[in-house]
Amino acid sequence: MPKPALDYLFNPGSMAIAGVSADMARPSPAQWFLKSLINFGFKGRVYPLHPAGGEIYGMKVYKNVQDIPGEVDYVVSAIPARFTPQLIEDCGTKGVKAVHLFTSGYGEIEAEIGKQLEVEVLRIARRTGVRLIGPNCMGLYCPASGLTFAGDYPDQHGFPVRPGPLGLISQSGGNCIFCIREATVRGVFFSKAISYGNAVDLNECDLLEYMTDDPDTKLIAMYIEGVKDGRRFMRALKRAVSLKPVIINKAGNTETGARTCSSHTGAIAGSAGTWQGLLRQVGVTQVGSMSELVDISVAFARMPVPAGRNVAVVGSGGGVGVQAADEITQAGLHLPVLPSDIREKLHNIYGTEAGAIFRNPVDVPPLASKEMYIKAVQAIADSDQIDVIIMHFPFDLWALAHRTILVAPFTEVVSELSQTIRKPLAIVLHYCVSANARKLADEVQEKIVNLGLPVFPSIPRASQAINKYIQYNERHNVNKP
Amino acid sequence: MPKPALDYLFNPGSMAIAGVSADMARPSPAQWFLKSLINFGFKGRVYPLHPAGGEIYGMKVYKNVQDIPGEVDYVVSAIPARFTPQLIEDCGTKGVKAVHLFTSGYGEIEAEIGKQLEVEVLRIARRTGVRLIGPNCMGLYCPASGLTFAGDYPDQHGFPVRPGPLGLISQSGGNCIFCIREATVRGVFFSKAISYGNAVDLNECDLLEYMTDDPDTKLIAMYIEGVKDGRRFMRALKRAVSLKPVIINKAGNTETGARTCSSHTGAIAGSAGTWQGLLRQVGVTQVGSMSELVDISVAFARMPVPAGRNVAVVGSGGGVGVQAADEITQAGLHLPVLPSDIREKLHNIYGTEAGAIFRNPVDVPPLASKEMYIKAVQAIADSDQIDVIIMHFPFDLWALAHRTILVAPFTEVVSELSQTIRKPLAIVLHYCVSANARKLADEVQEKIVNLGLPVFPSIPRASQAINKYIQYNERHNVNKP
Repeated sequence: MPKPALDYLFNPGSMAIAGVSADMARPSPAQWFLKSLINFGFKGRVYPLHPAGGEIYGMKVYKNVQDIPGEVDYVVSAIPARFTPQLIEDCGTKGVKAVHLFTSGYGEIEAEIGKQLEVEVLRIARRTGVRLIGPNCMGLYCPASGLTFAGDYPDQHGFPVRPGPLGLISQSGGNCIFCIREATVRGVFFSKAISYGNAVDLNECDLLEYMTDDPDTKLIAMYIEGVKDGRRFMRALKRAVSLKPVIINKAGNTETGARTCSSHTGAIAGSAGTWQGLLRQVGVTQVGSMSELVDISVAFARMPVPAGRNVAVVGSGGGVGVQAADEITQAGLHLPVLPSDIREKLHNIYGTEAGAIFRNPVDVPPLASKEMYIKAVQAIADSDQIDVIIMHFPFDLWALAHRTILVAPFTEVVSELSQTIRKPLAIVLHYCVSANARKLADEVQEKIVNLGLPVFPSIPRASQAINKYIQYNERHNVNKP
Repeated sequence: MPKPALDYLFNPGSMAIAGVSADMARPSPAQWFLKSLINFGFKGRVYPLHPAGGEIYGMKVYKNVQDIPGEVDYVVSAIPARFTPQLIEDCGTKGVKAVHLFTSGYGEIEAEIGKQLEVEVLRIARRTGVRLIGPNCMGLYCPASGLTFAGDYPDQHGFPVRPGPLGLISQSGGNCIFCIREATVRGVFFSKAISYGNAVDLNECDLLEYMTDDPDTKLIAMYIEGVKDGRRFMRALKRAVSLKPVIINKAGNTETGARTCSSHTGAIAGSAGTWQGLLRQVGVTQVGSMSELVDISVAFARMPVPAGRNVAVVGSGGGVGVQAADEITQAGLHLPVLPSDIREKLHNIYGTEAGAIFRNPVDVPPLASKEMYIKAVQAIADSDQIDVIIMHFPFDLWALAHRTILVAPFTEVVSELSQTIRKPLAIVLHYCVSANARKLADEVQEKIVNLGLPVFPSIPRASQAINKYIQYNERHNVNKP
């Protein structure tokens, strides 16, 4: 199979970082870029670049890209915007294939100079054959080739080296970072992620076409503020959707939001109604936030396709159950009353009805045994009237029972069921606001994610994601023989 | 001022807990009830009660309530439902004023015996003059008199002893507990909270009338699944709303939710549309979840009344800003472009526009100095075109900058501004998904809550709460001269 056209972007043999001062007393993003690549294990060569020269982390700082011995495929620019035209000229001379402009101060600022600079760097890029990523963006994350832009600090995990099925194209750097952090915490890993900013040269169409052809990307997610060429984008989208699920968070849906897009990345956001209609027509799964984008990715990447919309909810807490019933129904899923033979089984398992409700949601007595809990869920899973089971644990709901004595059995019950249940199973860890509960919830989440299960932080988020996942599969006939 | 009618409920001189086995090898909710009251510092006398007698925590366990020397005002029943008729008989003979039936297994279960028991206990209560709370509920929390039902375990804080303005009436025990935990973490404390369950005797009307007359309650919040007497409830509501803000989470808004109400507390939920219309007419602030109920309480209890809907958003992160613009607008607030004189001031403060957007949302450069940040927010607060300022910190948005070096200055900036800014100020701590970020966010939240400021976990939650707070004040003419 031939490599997709832009594959060289994600697999540079050698890189330079422009703007890396050797002066450790003045830490800068350029230094952190360099440090991140070294720590992450970038497989090629990396060269620091700064007009003052010197030495950093035992590496020589080159004064100019042309001074670097050997080839340089890819350059990250973290220098002031006014110096970037010369950098790109030099990169052209050196034969650099692509420059990532982390630098901001172009079309997104109000001053006219920003727009002028954008025109100028694009002109130089076209003339010299250098491709540009950005400006005003974080660039590339590609675990397979060791590319990253995530710092390595004790208080924040760098991005995982483990690769996965999700390809992310994000106009915003911050949203890209957040999405990588939230998705990987929930067990969805990345083939590639790219924060592409103002898109003066390489844009959402180029990147979408690349992800469509990339065999490592099984699922495409996008955060976009505006597109450069609507017709080409729709063509690219149609092709993408015909081959892989595509999830899009299109921001700038209000007048104020659209105005903010233009000052963020210089994007023309377009009308919300038009966008939504077009994306629906094409078969894109639309979301309203990065967290919802992650929720849907979790469903796509970690849940078998449900055969239908009938959900059973199992957990402890009566009021939680009432709210869950409303929330699940409002999300478009069904919550049928359990058939009487299943309810009879649940009665027999628990021996009493007091402190338990067996209709659906099933409100299990919190202090009953693990064995009872497992048998109850298995009985429900056996019913052909249930397509999806949501098990939930509300952390800050307890007042009289030791929270940890409830948490451990729940985790063990889920662990046991993950081996035996064939029905799609989703876990909701919610009602979590105190510092102690959050700590406990994070530990439980890590364990359950490691079992391969989809985990969600609330019933509405779980049910909206599951509903959109089912919608996608209905439309794309995944269940048809 | 005369005491409100039910004041004796919240101020018992002496209590008994029925069902406290002296056998420590068999821990039970009754033991935990007792332990909670002792640890919380209940000011009256407490007596354990169990047919087997014995001794627990150095206290004599009485076999029957009539054996207790001296008066008993209030009894908590944590015994099986079938023994409760006799307990209430005995309490009547002893002169007990009220019995809280923690016990479940009444009208909420499917078996006919549950309904029969409910009729029976009510009949005995009426005959003997004992008032009933519940059954199937957690009962009372009243910091002033030392009443609580929150356990005291190392992994979960008991309820705070600090009192506050919020009076909570909740049909669900779990939702009541969660609300107390979430509200107090965010700095909203309670006059009283009551979980009232099936409401066989004392019901939502009695409790609403009590909270209306209670001078310690400045703000009333309710979680209700159904009401016993619609006309009386509307009368009580009208009076309550004329005197205090009333926030209601009416659950069971879908057919499935309504069905679940009936199996949770035996409540008849009624039609969602009817409820919403009636509550709106009366001037109730309606919410859809316990978390939203807390958000609105935070606004009421911790924010000065905004003069209008014009919001300025200040923080770091361009994509976050775009989403915030959409979310704030969708919530009904306005996000005007900052007037040019203010933008000029911001330009002068930061010296450059690159890496910053000054229109609104204001995207401040994350690594700029604290002094610049403070000056920038002060300049915005000086504008008479801005009514509310939302400052936000996205925790999991950073990749190249040490998260902690950004967090500390942000917290100091907020601390400084909390002393000097007169405009309503709300803080959003969000984009928080990794365990490290959550830990950091919880620490920052605690500090900022202690400054007296309202803190919210997301822009949509903050703006929806602020919008409803403004709606309330518009309707109730709080800003009128």
